[in-house]
Amino acid sequence: MPPVVDQTVISSLAIPSDTKIVLLVLDGLGGVPLQPGGMTELETANTPHLDALARDGICGMHDPIGPGITPGSGPAHLAMFGYDPLEHQIGRGALEALGIGFDLHAGDMAARGNFCTVDDAGLITDRRAGRISTEKGSELVGLLRSIELPDVQTFVEPVKEYRFVLVLRGENLTGPLTETDPQRLGIAPLPVMALRPEAELTAALFNQWIALARGILADHRPANMVTLRGLDKNPGLPSMKEVYGLRAAAIAAYPMYRGAARLVGMDVLPTGESVEEEMEALKTHWASYDFFFVHVKKMDSAGEDGDFDRKVSLIEQVDKVIGPAIRQLQPDVVVVTGDHSTPALLRSHSWHPVPVLLYSRHCRSDEVQHFSERECARGALGRFPATEIMPLALANALRLTKFGA
Amino acid sequence: MPPVVDQTVISSLAIPSDTKIVLLVLDGLGGVPLQPGGMTELETANTPHLDALARDGICGMHDPIGPGITPGSGPAHLAMFGYDPLEHQIGRGALEALGIGFDLHAGDMAARGNFCTVDDAGLITDRRAGRISTEKGSELVGLLRSIELPDVQTFVEPVKEYRFVLVLRGENLTGPLTETDPQRLGIAPLPVMALRPEAELTAALFNQWIALARGILADHRPANMVTLRGLDKNPGLPSMKEVYGLRAAAIAAYPMYRGAARLVGMDVLPTGESVEEEMEALKTHWASYDFFFVHVKKMDSAGEDGDFDRKVSLIEQVDKVIGPAIRQLQPDVVVVTGDHSTPALLRSHSWHPVPVLLYSRHCRSDEVQHFSERECARGALGRFPATEIMPLALANALRLTKFGA
Repeated sequence: MPPVVDQTVISSLAIPSDTKIVLLVLDGLGGVPLQPGGMTELETANTPHLDALARDGICGMHDPIGPGITPGSGPAHLAMFGYDPLEHQIGRGALEALGIGFDLHAGDMAARGNFCTVDDAGLITDRRAGRISTEKGSELVGLLRSIELPDVQTFVEPVKEYRFVLVLRGENLTGPLTETDPQRLGIAPLPVMALRPEAELTAALFNQWIALARGILADHRPANMVTLRGLDKNPGLPSMKEVYGLRAAAIAAYPMYRGAARLVGMDVLPTGESVEEEMEALKTHWASYDFFFVHVKKMDSAGEDGDFDRKVSLIEQVDKVIGPAIRQLQPDVVVVTGDHSTPALLRSHSWHPVPVLLYSRHCRSDEVQHFSERECARGALGRFPATEIMPLALANALRLTKFGA
Repeated sequence: MPPVVDQTVISSLAIPSDTKIVLLVLDGLGGVPLQPGGMTELETANTPHLDALARDGICGMHDPIGPGITPGSGPAHLAMFGYDPLEHQIGRGALEALGIGFDLHAGDMAARGNFCTVDDAGLITDRRAGRISTEKGSELVGLLRSIELPDVQTFVEPVKEYRFVLVLRGENLTGPLTETDPQRLGIAPLPVMALRPEAELTAALFNQWIALARGILADHRPANMVTLRGLDKNPGLPSMKEVYGLRAAAIAAYPMYRGAARLVGMDVLPTGESVEEEMEALKTHWASYDFFFVHVKKMDSAGEDGDFDRKVSLIEQVDKVIGPAIRQLQPDVVVVTGDHSTPALLRSHSWHPVPVLLYSRHCRSDEVQHFSERECARGALGRFPATEIMPLALANALRLTKFGA
């Protein structure tokens, strides 16, 4: 049996240092050729800067969760941050709440909410309430804030258009709970149900809130009802500071990734949406942190749109921008990878392992000449679970001491 | 989780055979290029005999403890012997006692001791008692042997200069315990403290011994006090004979590795320090054992000195000597690897995986032509935990039967 080197072991070996690590996540990076024998998006792209890092660095392929498993973004990011994604299952509600900057406490129950339209019989006729404006959504959220529940605090926060976040805070709240959105028209929203006996009370509180919300919204057609999804608890993960001794910061334009970073205690830095703006943020805050998680979103969206060429072109743009930034800042360790694959061929996240390159002065480079799926599959890091990315990065940054005598 | 093929499973499959296995450990073998794109120590070395074994054998890279973990020598050797190094954490005291040839029993508590100097207020003024001579140290150890404790036997053994080993033997002794060396001057030695309630009695016995030692040493300034470190129990591992059915022997010049071999029940054979003498010992005892652990120390020291060229030259010397010996003895299985990497670049043990070659008549060889980090990284064994070395060696020696029907 392989020895179980879990996060506790890594944490026990962490030592202080002034080295700097950059983890650059190109969302949905991994791809698949459109034709057998063809090239993937990354193989098609001309990426001289990434190729140079791969040449001087060491490469491999990571499985975000495990072979054959298509990961959601939440667990994939947790794994890359070194947290076991199966042990720590995070609801989408908690990620959404964190993503909009809500100060979610350990033990809080969070849900994503949608305004929707129901007919007189209570059956859903529009799951997004005619896509009401963000302004209208915020106004309705204001009304929902008047709802009070026994012994718990409630928080309602607008997100965008018809979306909001609901948080319950109190003693003994717990999941797992079912969702209320039936994902189809013509039937009524489902009740929240407890999937374990100890979650009954929490389910009852959510159902009570929904009933009160329905009363308040009755005259606000098309937004005359709500559905709740991704109801789950903030597990209160130990921070990267506690676990690794790292002052960690996130540079991410999209709420969900900012949320994933907050979950592990990273400071979320202000940034614009473009890679250029993200690199500016990196430079601005360079002196203040040891670890930077930089998230680049757009190639994932191109993959989900099935747009092979756009994904290629976005990869090339990223290459142009990050090359000079990395050369200027000279991090001690650079890791470039994706959180998962999003092949244009599949128009969705996929299970394919994800190319990864690690550059450091001490990395013992391999024979990989180009950053690509084919070459990374032959890289000296081999194929490994994403949870090993942080131990490798920390080791290369000389931030782990020896195990045993 | 992958199926748990632990040592119990391997043990249940072990069958008798008259095949012979040699595990040749070149301490600190793995290296790193001095410049990105350059060659490692092993890649630089001219090693025709090891290359021939690699060509006919199968190669890969092992992680002694886990990716990113820099191993101490103790756990790295336990892993290569097939014992989970995280489950069996061995205190330095036990390894030191075993290393000097002390007949440590299962359940014995062992500690490394230092003579030190304290002033009239009991504060440490010299942690090494002015580096007293080995002769003086032995004389003082003789005095300490007069100490008696209730219900336990005590053993004190000189090591070198100001260092000694203290062993308590009795019922119900257990750790974990804290160390007494404060690692600073100007404060008094710390008391031994139990880190779990069941260790209270053992802590009290050590403290009682220390108090008596202080009385005996009072007039022996500069060695007028002692500190104890690495206090822990010999966990009493099952022997390689019990686990694998192997008559196992160690050929190792350095105490610590002899200690690690004794921990798993190997006979430790007499040998000189040079590789030539070690090969002579191998030939002399060839008929009497099934498994030989041969440990070659010097390249590790060269790595720790940052001496790239000396490490290269030592690897070449080993190649010259072992080639003919292996050809003469014709072991059924030869494994050549290191316990960890010690790159001259880092002047220390490191986390880098370690090249490994396995030669047997049945190994299904791969395309590796030279024994080197780069080629082993592409070898058919892939990258694997060190605990898999023994199952692979036993299988190739036809010493494991089929699992299931």
